[in-house]
Amino acid sequence: MSTRIGILGYGNLGRGVECAIKQNNDMELVAVFTRRDPSTVSILTETATVCKVEEAADWKDKIDVMILCGGSATDLPEQTPEFAQYFNVIDSFDTHARIPEHFANVDKAAKENGTVGIISVGWDPGMFSLNRLYANAILPEGNDYTFWGKGVSQGHSDAIRRIEGVKNAKQYTIPVDSALDAVREGTNPELTTRQKHTRECFVVLEDGADAAKVEEEIKTMPNYFADYDTTVHFISEEELMAEHSGIPHGGFVLRSGVTGWDKENKHLIEYSLKLDSNPEFTSSVLVAYARAAHRLSNEGQSGCKTVFDIAPAYLSAKSGEELRKEML
Amino acid sequence: MSTRIGILGYGNLGRGVECAIKQNNDMELVAVFTRRDPSTVSILTETATVCKVEEAADWKDKIDVMILCGGSATDLPEQTPEFAQYFNVIDSFDTHARIPEHFANVDKAAKENGTVGIISVGWDPGMFSLNRLYANAILPEGNDYTFWGKGVSQGHSDAIRRIEGVKNAKQYTIPVDSALDAVREGTNPELTTRQKHTRECFVVLEDGADAAKVEEEIKTMPNYFADYDTTVHFISEEELMAEHSGIPHGGFVLRSGVTGWDKENKHLIEYSLKLDSNPEFTSSVLVAYARAAHRLSNEGQSGCKTVFDIAPAYLSAKSGEELRKEML
Repeated sequence: MSTRIGILGYGNLGRGVECAIKQNNDMELVAVFTRRDPSTVSILTETATVCKVEEAADWKDKIDVMILCGGSATDLPEQTPEFAQYFNVIDSFDTHARIPEHFANVDKAAKENGTVGIISVGWDPGMFSLNRLYANAILPEGNDYTFWGKGVSQGHSDAIRRIEGVKNAKQYTIPVDSALDAVREGTNPELTTRQKHTRECFVVLEDGADAAKVEEEIKTMPNYFADYDTTVHFISEEELMAEHSGIPHGGFVLRSGVTGWDKENKHLIEYSLKLDSNPEFTSSVLVAYARAAHRLSNEGQSGCKTVFDIAPAYLSAKSGEELRKEML
Repeated sequence: MSTRIGILGYGNLGRGVECAIKQNNDMELVAVFTRRDPSTVSILTETATVCKVEEAADWKDKIDVMILCGGSATDLPEQTPEFAQYFNVIDSFDTHARIPEHFANVDKAAKENGTVGIISVGWDPGMFSLNRLYANAILPEGNDYTFWGKGVSQGHSDAIRRIEGVKNAKQYTIPVDSALDAVREGTNPELTTRQKHTRECFVVLEDGADAAKVEEEIKTMPNYFADYDTTVHFISEEELMAEHSGIPHGGFVLRSGVTGWDKENKHLIEYSLKLDSNPEFTSSVLVAYARAAHRLSNEGQSGCKTVFDIAPAYLSAKSGEELRKEML
């Protein structure tokens, strides 16, 4: 059974999904839907079509799962419930505070139309969430820690670019090694924001801009930088392109807990990711969950689900027998 | 809803299950079943009863899940299918080669009697298996690595104790740091058995035993030690008790893979455990899956399942709403 995939939105994430589909021979990219003029969008998959987003509903019977590759701020809150009317859908909605509301909206649309919607798929939310859940279920008495990086934060890079005098910028979030080590040693430290991560910024100035003023504005920016130890490097546009054009990311989820009648034994569970390309890894997770969505739908299920609700075997192209033999 | 638990077999694992139940206030230990004379077995939970294993079937309506804490060599292949006739059952069956056969036997008994059986629960098989599956589903092109330790191998310790002249012994399996580092760097090394782990043995000799002969016999023992770099230390019984009476273990599951149209981006997924008590951690996983077994049974499901078949949310005492709000 091949799963026919549609991609809605062809940015970094949409392109990543296209690449991931190529790596899974039970998956097939059928069409890419875009808000741009389709004639201006060139995709890599020769057998797929580029269409206007307005035409998507016409593809109802030709697509098994639509992967929504828009942003969480304005695209997905509208798109996921809308397209759940026609398709099984997957998104990477990552605005944590709005997940309950988004879940309710997608659940309603999906149940009314007999489709499956899987939201908040990726690595955080996504694989990191799964690891928090498993570790908490196994070690009910303990402490959770999540560290991000080393990686590029799009939001923080954007915030720097909005400062007057800044032409371009890239910001890296970096976990503090000594904090990670303290967690690994099982000392259950209480860590402030400043103790967990540092921020490193590579900034290209406009001609004639005041470097000292820009640096001060970055370092004192509330929420984004003020609570962190921040380093600012001024570099040329050429150096930024040559050295900082990638989108790496990653991080660590740890839980340290105790067992035993008198809580005498310590345990540490650690999950970590080191990713050359944040969007391509997220896309790879989306595609694995697209396989699950198709199978759940074929079983007659409907409604909104998250990674918590999906048995791991649904993600794999292998059969139950193969999985038990090769991976258990 | 409280889950009423029975424990069958009161060794290290059974005692670990008893401790884990105490940490989960939706769980209750009802009875411990033993092959010994019940009057000789004293348990820690004041509200629970110790019974003969032959009486177990009488408890059919008083126990929601029976956790089988016997060994994989001879106990579980008999016990899990037998007790699946009366109870939802969980075991930690870990003879990889015999899993398909064990699965089939438990599945038959469970389906015929409308019970749920979850087999091969623990950390390997168990959490390590889950991480292999998730990582392979996300990164279909890549390499898998599993390292064990540093930890005590019961099987290897037993093998040393069977040597003539050996009074007592403890064997540690230790992953080779340089091999782990090579995997983390994404070089996809091909590693021999010798390159992945070393073995360290602490041995107490009988009076008058020949140390050189014992050491030679250990280091050349086929399957157990001959393929490894092995170190042997002769120590006193007192030192063995003082320094080596714990049962720590742990290990690492890694997958390094590539994404991108031309496979140009590398990714590393790593999961690791560092455990003070191997049996208590395994027990904690068993108890989390007992919660899942009870819920699945209440939903009307039956048959044999593994960790691959169970949605993560079933392991947690929290509701779907709570999980989405607190952990996603």
